[in-house]
Amino acid sequence: MVIQFADQKREFNKRPTKIGRRSLSRSISQSSTDSYSSDSSDDETSPRDKQQKNSKGSSDFCVKNIKQAEFGRREIEIAEQEMPALMALRKRAQGEKPLSGAKIVGCTHITAQTAVLIETLGALGAQCRWAACNIYSTLNEVAAALAESGFPVFSWKGESEDDFWWCIDRCVNVEGWQPNMILDDGGDLTHWIYKKYPNMFKKIKGIVEESVTGVHRLYQLSKAGKLCVPAMNVNDSVTKQKFDNLYCCRESILDGLKRTTDMMFGGKQVVVCGYGEVGKGCCAALKAMGSIVYVTEIDPICALQACMDGFRLVKLNEVIRQVDIVITCTGNKNVVTREHLDRMKNGCIVCNMGHSNTEIDVASLRTPELTWERVRSQVDHVIWPDGKRIVLLAEGRLLNLSCSTVPTFVLSITATTQALALIELYNAPEGRYKQDVYLLPKKMDEYVASLHLPTFDAHLTELSDEQAKYLGLNKNGPFKPNYYRYLNFFILITF
Amino acid sequence: MVIQFADQKREFNKRPTKIGRRSLSRSISQSSTDSYSSDSSDDETSPRDKQQKNSKGSSDFCVKNIKQAEFGRREIEIAEQEMPALMALRKRAQGEKPLSGAKIVGCTHITAQTAVLIETLGALGAQCRWAACNIYSTLNEVAAALAESGFPVFSWKGESEDDFWWCIDRCVNVEGWQPNMILDDGGDLTHWIYKKYPNMFKKIKGIVEESVTGVHRLYQLSKAGKLCVPAMNVNDSVTKQKFDNLYCCRESILDGLKRTTDMMFGGKQVVVCGYGEVGKGCCAALKAMGSIVYVTEIDPICALQACMDGFRLVKLNEVIRQVDIVITCTGNKNVVTREHLDRMKNGCIVCNMGHSNTEIDVASLRTPELTWERVRSQVDHVIWPDGKRIVLLAEGRLLNLSCSTVPTFVLSITATTQALALIELYNAPEGRYKQDVYLLPKKMDEYVASLHLPTFDAHLTELSDEQAKYLGLNKNGPFKPNYYRYLNFFILITF
Amino acid sequence: MVIQFADQKREFNKRPTKIGRRSLSRSISQSSTDSYSSDSSDDETSPRDKQQKNSKGSSDFCVKNIKQAEFGRREIEIAEQEMPALMALRKRAQGEKPLSGAKIVGCTHITAQTAVLIETLGALGAQCRWAACNIYSTLNEVAAALAESGFPVFSWKGESEDDFWWCIDRCVNVEGWQPNMILDDGGDLTHWIYKKYPNMFKKIKGIVEESVTGVHRLYQLSKAGKLCVPAMNVNDSVTKQKFDNLYCCRESILDGLKRTTDMMFGGKQVVVCGYGEVGKGCCAALKAMGSIVYVTEIDPICALQACMDGFRLVKLNEVIRQVDIVITCTGNKNVVTREHLDRMKNGCIVCNMGHSNTEIDVASLRTPELTWERVRSQVDHVIWPDGKRIVLLAEGRLLNLSCSTVPTFVLSITATTQALALIELYNAPEGRYKQDVYLLPKKMDEYVASLHLPTFDAHLTELSDEQAKYLGLNKNGPFKPNYYRYLNFFILITF
Amino acid sequence: MVIQFADQKREFNKRPTKIGRRSLSRSISQSSTDSYSSDSSDDETSPRDKQQKNSKGSSDFCVKNIKQAEFGRREIEIAEQEMPALMALRKRAQGEKPLSGAKIVGCTHITAQTAVLIETLGALGAQCRWAACNIYSTLNEVAAALAESGFPVFSWKGESEDDFWWCIDRCVNVEGWQPNMILDDGGDLTHWIYKKYPNMFKKIKGIVEESVTGVHRLYQLSKAGKLCVPAMNVNDSVTKQKFDNLYCCRESILDGLKRTTDMMFGGKQVVVCGYGEVGKGCCAALKAMGSIVYVTEIDPICALQACMDGFRLVKLNEVIRQVDIVITCTGNKNVVTREHLDRMKNGCIVCNMGHSNTEIDVASLRTPELTWERVRSQVDHVIWPDGKRIVLLAEGRLLNLSCSTVPTFVLSITATTQALALIELYNAPEGRYKQDVYLLPKKMDEYVASLHLPTFDAHLTELSDEQAKYLGLNKNGPFKPNYYRYLNFFILITF
Repeated sequence: MVIQFADQKREFNKRPTKIGRRSLSRSISQSSTDSYSSDSSDDETSPRDKQQKNSKGSSDFCVKNIKQAEFGRREIEIAEQEMPALMALRKRAQGEKPLSGAKIVGCTHITAQTAVLIETLGALGAQCRWAACNIYSTLNEVAAALAESGFPVFSWKGESEDDFWWCIDRCVNVEGWQPNMILDDGGDLTHWIYKKYPNMFKKIKGIVEESVTGVHRLYQLSKAGKLCVPAMNVNDSVTKQKFDNLYCCRESILDGLKRTTDMMFGGKQVVVCGYGEVGKGCCAALKAMGSIVYVTEIDPICALQACMDGFRLVKLNEVIRQVDIVITCTGNKNVVTREHLDRMKNGCIVCNMGHSNTEIDVASLRTPELTWERVRSQVDHVIWPDGKRIVLLAEGRLLNLSCSTVPTFVLSITATTQALALIELYNAPEGRYKQDVYLLPKKMDEYVASLHLPTFDAHLTELSDEQAKYLGLNKNGPFKPNYYRYLNFFILITF
Repeated sequence: MVIQFADQKREFNKRPTKIGRRSLSRSISQSSTDSYSSDSSDDETSPRDKQQKNSKGSSDFCVKNIKQAEFGRREIEIAEQEMPALMALRKRAQGEKPLSGAKIVGCTHITAQTAVLIETLGALGAQCRWAACNIYSTLNEVAAALAESGFPVFSWKGESEDDFWWCIDRCVNVEGWQPNMILDDGGDLTHWIYKKYPNMFKKIKGIVEESVTGVHRLYQLSKAGKLCVPAMNVNDSVTKQKFDNLYCCRESILDGLKRTTDMMFGGKQVVVCGYGEVGKGCCAALKAMGSIVYVTEIDPICALQACMDGFRLVKLNEVIRQVDIVITCTGNKNVVTREHLDRMKNGCIVCNMGHSNTEIDVASLRTPELTWERVRSQVDHVIWPDGKRIVLLAEGRLLNLSCSTVPTFVLSITATTQALALIELYNAPEGRYKQDVYLLPKKMDEYVASLHLPTFDAHLTELSDEQAKYLGLNKNGPFKPNYYRYLNFFILITF
Repeated sequence: MVIQFADQKREFNKRPTKIGRRSLSRSISQSSTDSYSSDSSDDETSPRDKQQKNSKGSSDFCVKNIKQAEFGRREIEIAEQEMPALMALRKRAQGEKPLSGAKIVGCTHITAQTAVLIETLGALGAQCRWAACNIYSTLNEVAAALAESGFPVFSWKGESEDDFWWCIDRCVNVEGWQPNMILDDGGDLTHWIYKKYPNMFKKIKGIVEESVTGVHRLYQLSKAGKLCVPAMNVNDSVTKQKFDNLYCCRESILDGLKRTTDMMFGGKQVVVCGYGEVGKGCCAALKAMGSIVYVTEIDPICALQACMDGFRLVKLNEVIRQVDIVITCTGNKNVVTREHLDRMKNGCIVCNMGHSNTEIDVASLRTPELTWERVRSQVDHVIWPDGKRIVLLAEGRLLNLSCSTVPTFVLSITATTQALALIELYNAPEGRYKQDVYLLPKKMDEYVASLHLPTFDAHLTELSDEQAKYLGLNKNGPFKPNYYRYLNFFILITF
Repeated sequence: MVIQFADQKREFNKRPTKIGRRSLSRSISQSSTDSYSSDSSDDETSPRDKQQKNSKGSSDFCVKNIKQAEFGRREIEIAEQEMPALMALRKRAQGEKPLSGAKIVGCTHITAQTAVLIETLGALGAQCRWAACNIYSTLNEVAAALAESGFPVFSWKGESEDDFWWCIDRCVNVEGWQPNMILDDGGDLTHWIYKKYPNMFKKIKGIVEESVTGVHRLYQLSKAGKLCVPAMNVNDSVTKQKFDNLYCCRESILDGLKRTTDMMFGGKQVVVCGYGEVGKGCCAALKAMGSIVYVTEIDPICALQACMDGFRLVKLNEVIRQVDIVITCTGNKNVVTREHLDRMKNGCIVCNMGHSNTEIDVASLRTPELTWERVRSQVDHVIWPDGKRIVLLAEGRLLNLSCSTVPTFVLSITATTQALALIELYNAPEGRYKQDVYLLPKKMDEYVASLHLPTFDAHLTELSDEQAKYLGLNKNGPFKPNYYRYLNFFILITF
């Protein structure tokens, strides 16, 4: 446990990085919400010092300004339109309430899409209390709307570290109420309960964890024999992985580059470092827009795929002098070094679509002989003594997180997976899940997908009895073998 | 002339429409410049009432605020990086000055890209005086930077109609200075001289006109036998047409939709009305991003092309109930009617990439039973009594003009074409051009293209003597027949 | 006339080249018909020496073997299925017979597709007599089927030069019958009548010519003032050009390479010389299959298009050592020289998709130090002293002519255009056409396209009265300006 | 064992189906080799009755005609050019001989590519004896060339069932020689040894099995506890799966359709049943050629992928009346039923790219009211009473097996994987492999891929020490986790 805590501290300090690709919705996008968001309000009083009540008289919440609820409600309604699966779950829940009796404590980004999830959990019968998993990512209006609707939410944009843990504690430490389910994103909530209220786990039926970091911690706990309830790793469901990586990046690489630089893609020479799912998405999109794309890889299998998909496989050094754009998608560190940056041509754009802010050695650019000039939000010109300018986006942090938006449809898949994981763990018969980390059952993964097909007016074919027998499958799935579910993590993020 | 004037009046009233696809650079994009632009300054004094001098003591200009020159200069420098052809012309002009003695009066959008053009004309030996062709499109900082550098510029953002003509007059009506070349965009400057100072044409060697509207007026003048100097239609050069339409729209349709709606393209059903160059660009981009695209057409040849390119050719009615996005690219009117809008499904996005704001019958939506809700800048939800929402972008005006940016590289092609047209008309031997409207000689069109190839590190092959003889071509071009030049207009915008 | 004859002689000698991309149907494809065709029959008697009658007792024809008619009829029926436009014309002709009274003499390739055309002309009211325009291209069974159906056909595969002219003469020189229309492909028939029966032109209403060569001759005659009837150039109709070049080559480059080499396209490096329509089609197809494609160009405008479409523009020398495939599409000569061939790597494939067999300097490979080894039909290994092998396809002749097939659908467009041109010339009021060379009226070009839309179940939109007025167009077309028709030739084959 | 034998009998009867997608090289392609192959020789003597010796005097082989060795050698040499990985293995084996002492008995298709494999095994130190795994697939000339080079080969095209087992027996039942390794394709050789010479397994170090069928049998043996040596499943290596399915089908669907029907892809409506790797390849290729593609699926995850990739997901019934082509890629049975066939439009093409000949219910078409007309090799017109024709390819068997060719490059990957699997099993230290079925170690899979990269002049990036440490990877791979290798089978064939 001591080790965990040390780990925790370290994680906290690099929180902005930890956010991951996940839950950042359009609401956070600078370009779209500035005019509507009230974040710039001059109210400097800490929410912890305010006395606020919602229209029903409840004060069991802590948000920036309960009066912003109406604007937040509109954002939630817009999000509902693109989250058809959760709305479908609500409809089906009108008879049975699969989460009846569930007491869920949650710790996630607080956005319009999360609000749709929380309100769906409510509609399914659950009681919820919620805190933010990130000190910056709360959309205050949405938090207000949730509070107004009666959800005890403790979260605002710009919390201090002390605020952060205070909010989590307010969710958990309630008189007369004790959670029996955890929905976590990053593992901080889980960590807090482990540390402060270990006895609570006696009543907890399971943990649903969303992030790479949090899943990693759970596996560590499990290995150490310290995981005392079943946990569901929803980060690695097939559907979510494909959407978060291939499909989402295919669109966001274009969006992120356009919003920051207004560049033309046609004819530009681009090198993409890494040909996993993220790299594949970036390459496909840029090729389609008329860019000439080079790829670097360390894994010969991915390298061969890049060849067969029509990309020249090179070492970065071979093309660094000639390319117009450098994009990192490796999950590795120092992929783009100062030496590379020194050799780039004037005007070269450098950005990162990978898993951390380590891929470009940005630190190496903070030397006296280089001048930094911020030309737009998220866009810096780094200027060499000879006048050469490198265009660095988002200071090397994730481009699609910082400079583009994540479509609600992608978040819908994540949120639906979370809801189903909660339902599964809450309703699973004694003994189905032990004190271990599980992937979502294959059939549920398929169910998440099927709930999103109506959006595309897509019509699934059903097996005839004869065909099901021939294939040895149940007509309703799962259509992939059961053991499959333990494995997809390793495969899908790589090929 | 009376007819012209009436025409003029009518045009003026719908000025915002007239802007065309052309010269709107990133500088106008709301999302990118708001934080840097000083347009929101509280200085309400009319520039006409101010006393301003630049650092050299000159007051022969009228801009919003000469003190903004420094910021404007930086924008100009950034633009220079992506306008390699003009910079190349400047270099070549160090010896000979092909515009030595030229006195150019210009009337265009005043943006960073135009500034690069104006300063290039100066470097080529010309004296220039400049006004804006649009009352809203001036970037004040850039105008200031030009004034600071000694160019007499008369222009600011937010001119009144009276201001507009006053500025033009200040460019033309100068003691001791008389223009011998006109560079116009929209025909207003040309019209003003015709009306007020017809004698000036005695010294004028030619007009270079940029816009569809302006070219149309020149052809009318020519037909009526009233055109008294040669005019060059640069709107219809091959290079410009391809860039302004196919290549530019391929990128800006994605950009415009993302910035306004943050939607995901994958799996979306889209109908594109019209399969000319603009429609082809839109269809190709959306298909590449995973949308399912339908096309409507009236011309069987374009229709057959749509089929061969893999798009279902339908009538709008056949798919209107099922599509997620409707995009018009026809140049026609009322392509999307109220009846169509009534039948669209909830959440359908409607936008226009065509040549005017007439394609969608927006007027039909301004009825009492429908509610309009502005959800973002340029995005309206039109709400039917049953709650159905249609997402209307830019109120039916050009999407790529209103909601995305035009890459500098595209503007570079236009600006270079203008510069070469001025050089050609100014230096042409007596008799080469009569009082008629001309297209840029094929060879010059090719020269514009060749000046942009270095950007792509592209290496042109040269004909051997033997090959040139075999093909019956000059080794240096033109590579297309001479009569070709009269025709490309009709072809290129349609197939 | 003397000049013409010299020209004629020269042309004759290189006949195999002259064939052009056009009319070679699948029936000629070696790989598909060998087992069914009876060409290998041992019957060595010249058809001129045979006595044959069809089942109705007529002997006014000369074919290889009238007994093969049944197989030929089946081929014709198969072709009819993919020539919907001609079948539609037949239906519409049940009432009016627009060619009633027409006496057409034709000289084209004799294939199943031509047979559908000839029988359509018959159904429209015309009398027809027919010869082959090429000594090798006749499908004997089809000729037999036509003869059996009562069409006087004079043609067989493997004619001598004397046979060739004898056949043409038999079509023209008939007692009691004189042609009033000519349908020619290559100009040989027209030439023969000019030379032998110049008086016949008094009754001839017009010539329809299909080939580049034939059109060139007609323009020469016209320039020389010797063209004594109107002629219609159907080679350069928009629809035909696009299909013969872009769309057809996009598919046939893949087909031709696969059938000859069974190579895998994915990951291969390819250089395409020339980026006109043919080059564009080749590049698009190979890029889609995962090849890495380089382009060479002499024209800066096409070069810029290649860049924007995502191809590296290089000089051939820059990539010649590294590429796996070299494809010429220039219309030029000696684009690939012996020097290039010397520098290619082992196994490099070299082929030609351009307009002649001059693009690759094949002659330079016929030197003693190089060994030629025929490894398959149309595939030679040229072996250097060091063992290096270059794979030369079709000895540098047109790949898609020699090694792939032309889809019937493409030929349908050509044949329909020919039929409409005949109808137009035959029915045109006195004075509409002078003794000059014309392009098919724009509206007819559109009509050809519209007749092919039902194949794709494509639904054309019709203009409303209001829209037609707004655009200044007739509701039924033409949708492109009239002067457009004189120009498309120059444009479409180049951009 | 009894069960196995019954299974064996059943399999034998449907041998032509069993061949699988794998090893059919271009040499078998009917269209390319007819003129060079000597299969049509009139020599009717059974090879078993002939007395033949090779030039070194050995008669330990049985082939059709040893005199054809020279032609076979040339085919082998051509194949060597596209099998760079095996040639690289030969080079590395000049010092060490990793198969020194190995006695390999093999049973595979006997083609030029297999010959390169066998001769490579020889160069690596192994003694080999070989039989064919299929009675039709032997290329006689290649068998002769191997025999001439001293490899005891027992195989010819057109063996009887008795011949088939006789040949296998001659490989195994040799005096003074006993195999210690098995390379099998289909399991017949393994089965024969189990049945006839079970004691041989005492000396056998392992089995390498190539086919789905053979692997399935091995797993059955393993489950039943009867597998007495380690076995390596090379069918399911990542590299092989991707190449055999996605990349290969992407090309062969076009090739197969063109060679059989000469159809044009542009504008055609196609329905692809199944969106696994094979379906993905077919869809991508046809979309790129301008077809309009619909997809059917039973698995919601694959269905969602189809949507995101831009294909309309439908039930077959919804589009069956309108499509031009139906392609099955499901692995299921009766996907296309008689009812579907009854509703197809005239001229519709029906073919199968899936895993068996059961996908199209061809049997249902063998009814008296329907007429079958064979129009080309592998192409039947099935004619309905009303004249409607359905074009059925390869009688519903695998299109790419029957009507196109498999590039040598694909076979190179398979053959290299086989060679490495043999080396691994032969050299593995005692105890590394038990009596179970294994997948190729991840690192070896990566090694196969890396051996093929030079073909594409592809340059792999190497991790720095620091990066390897950061990622927790060995610098030389494997780059995917070790447990990964047990799992890829289930994943890769499905997503």
